[in-house]
Amino acid sequence: MRSLEWNSENKSLRAIDQRLIPAQLAYVDLGDVAAVAEAIRTMVVRGAPAIGVAAGYGVALAAWETKLSDINAYKEKVFQAISDLRQSRPTAINLTFALDRMGKVLEDEKLSTDQLRIRLEEEAIKIDQENTADCFAISQYGAELIQDGDTIIHHCNTGGLATVEWGTALGAIHMAYQQGKRIHVLVDETRPRLQGARITAWELQQFGIPFDIITDNSAGYFLSKGKVDKVFFGADRVARNGDVANKVGTYMLALAAFHNKVPVYSIFPISSVDFQLPDGEAIPIEERDPLEVLDIQQHGEPVVPHGSTALNPAFDVTPHELITGWVTEKGMINPPFEQNISKITSLSRS
Amino acid sequence: MRSLEWNSENKSLRAIDQRLIPAQLAYVDLGDVAAVAEAIRTMVVRGAPAIGVAAGYGVALAAWETKLSDINAYKEKVFQAISDLRQSRPTAINLTFALDRMGKVLEDEKLSTDQLRIRLEEEAIKIDQENTADCFAISQYGAELIQDGDTIIHHCNTGGLATVEWGTALGAIHMAYQQGKRIHVLVDETRPRLQGARITAWELQQFGIPFDIITDNSAGYFLSKGKVDKVFFGADRVARNGDVANKVGTYMLALAAFHNKVPVYSIFPISSVDFQLPDGEAIPIEERDPLEVLDIQQHGEPVVPHGSTALNPAFDVTPHELITGWVTEKGMINPPFEQNISKITSLSRS
Repeated sequence: MRSLEWNSENKSLRAIDQRLIPAQLAYVDLGDVAAVAEAIRTMVVRGAPAIGVAAGYGVALAAWETKLSDINAYKEKVFQAISDLRQSRPTAINLTFALDRMGKVLEDEKLSTDQLRIRLEEEAIKIDQENTADCFAISQYGAELIQDGDTIIHHCNTGGLATVEWGTALGAIHMAYQQGKRIHVLVDETRPRLQGARITAWELQQFGIPFDIITDNSAGYFLSKGKVDKVFFGADRVARNGDVANKVGTYMLALAAFHNKVPVYSIFPISSVDFQLPDGEAIPIEERDPLEVLDIQQHGEPVVPHGSTALNPAFDVTPHELITGWVTEKGMINPPFEQNISKITSLSRS
Repeated sequence: MRSLEWNSENKSLRAIDQRLIPAQLAYVDLGDVAAVAEAIRTMVVRGAPAIGVAAGYGVALAAWETKLSDINAYKEKVFQAISDLRQSRPTAINLTFALDRMGKVLEDEKLSTDQLRIRLEEEAIKIDQENTADCFAISQYGAELIQDGDTIIHHCNTGGLATVEWGTALGAIHMAYQQGKRIHVLVDETRPRLQGARITAWELQQFGIPFDIITDNSAGYFLSKGKVDKVFFGADRVARNGDVANKVGTYMLALAAFHNKVPVYSIFPISSVDFQLPDGEAIPIEERDPLEVLDIQQHGEPVVPHGSTALNPAFDVTPHELITGWVTEKGMINPPFEQNISKITSLSRS
């Protein structure tokens, strides 16, 4: 099962509507670039790697739907699509990464409009395939960290739905389980959108991996009682020094783990690293609709008093000091992160 | 408005059903001791000080409803009521404190059954009155800590409903607001029972104090961005060394505040201190029904996959190192807590 499926014949993109999990497994057809941008904004498609892949296909859709024959007018129109997609969500760097790659193809002066359509589609497929291969490698490296019998707290959702296939932190758990290791996952429910309680719980259930859902605010209790071996989460954008922007709540979780000497792993493809940023301070943190906080219900009744307001930052930044290690498609990266990641990236460039 | 109202004429107790706030302000009549125990267990009555007061009245109810004329049989029956109430919830020490006081009256060998009925009722009323006076004093001392323009994160509910009248942490906020100080409260929603989003938001709305509801897991974000001046919460049981058991999530909140050098105040009557306990390690932490976590809904639909399980610790322990100060009816108490509280309690004994 893939969260995104490109149809090369019809030039169309199909996505699992993640808002409906676990109530139903439903697919939506994203017929044009505007539909892709809207799907990202409204979290039909979510998870930093999946957002990147969807954005690549969004540009491919724009490339095919733009009928202009004048090359400059054509490019302007497709660049506009890239720009629209760039605005869809601010925090995940994978979006920028994918769109920059698509933009580079579009800049190629040797290509005609017909050639550009083909090349842009190829590039989007390549981003997808590389991402899947990366997630598979990440899952393998991540699985090596897991011991038989481990209890792991997992925040948000980092499985196949978030990444198209396999996943990152949840991929590692899945892989380790397939290797025969016994694992118990404490699933942070991940307010306000409840990606943990809804999606991670659903994926774990599919795999048969034992889990219990916990409120985000109770992670500290389990950590302090010595009931947790590891803390796993993904990343939406990583600064050069190792600071990690990820789903809101990650910072408090990592802090509680650090305070209790439980190792903390942030698990992501290297495309999540924003090499322009020296630290996490400048990472833009998306503020989402307060209704996501306020529309909580119990027994079908709204919980908050009428007229209440809310603040809803979607991400926070975990300082690198709290993170034991990164797990990437190139393997485990230990602190000092800036030094060690630059060794790997210069190696792969040479 | 008081959360508990004793009717001396009918010998009956009326309580606001806190489970229904904010949807409706409804009262329930608790006609016998079994009803009081059930109301505590199911959180019709909640909040450590309010639980203590309710338990006192529960014993008074038992004292009146027990018709036995043999003094030993009478005492046995009322002691049984004390024992039943003691089992209703394990963490809040105020329950033990109130029941021990009632038990001491019951042990008085000079009193007849008729006299015991009157004395037990008097003692319950005294516990209630002293608690109200303590909460008023606490609110005054707590208000002194608040500066004009402060933004305060508040966890769970510590207002009039939790304490019968005035409140502790929320009482201080209310008092400071009445003194003309401008305050903005960030209301931790407090999963799973949402006492913040439901009850604290409702109380703040009654007072006209500006607030925003936030998810518990986003407190770290606001703290790290320098948007918070103080963190306020109550206590369910405090160990001699200053470790505080309070509503789950308090520990992670205090840790995030400490990490960002924001002062942390635990605000409670001295009856919340369990002088028998050297530290927080041994405080019994109630595990509540997993359904409290699992029954969350959005748009009227259950969120979690069918068959999911959850773990639901209702409290956690915040180590004393993370706490800037206690606020009590005797004023502010700074670390070292054990030394400073013993000065005050020996003073009041002498």
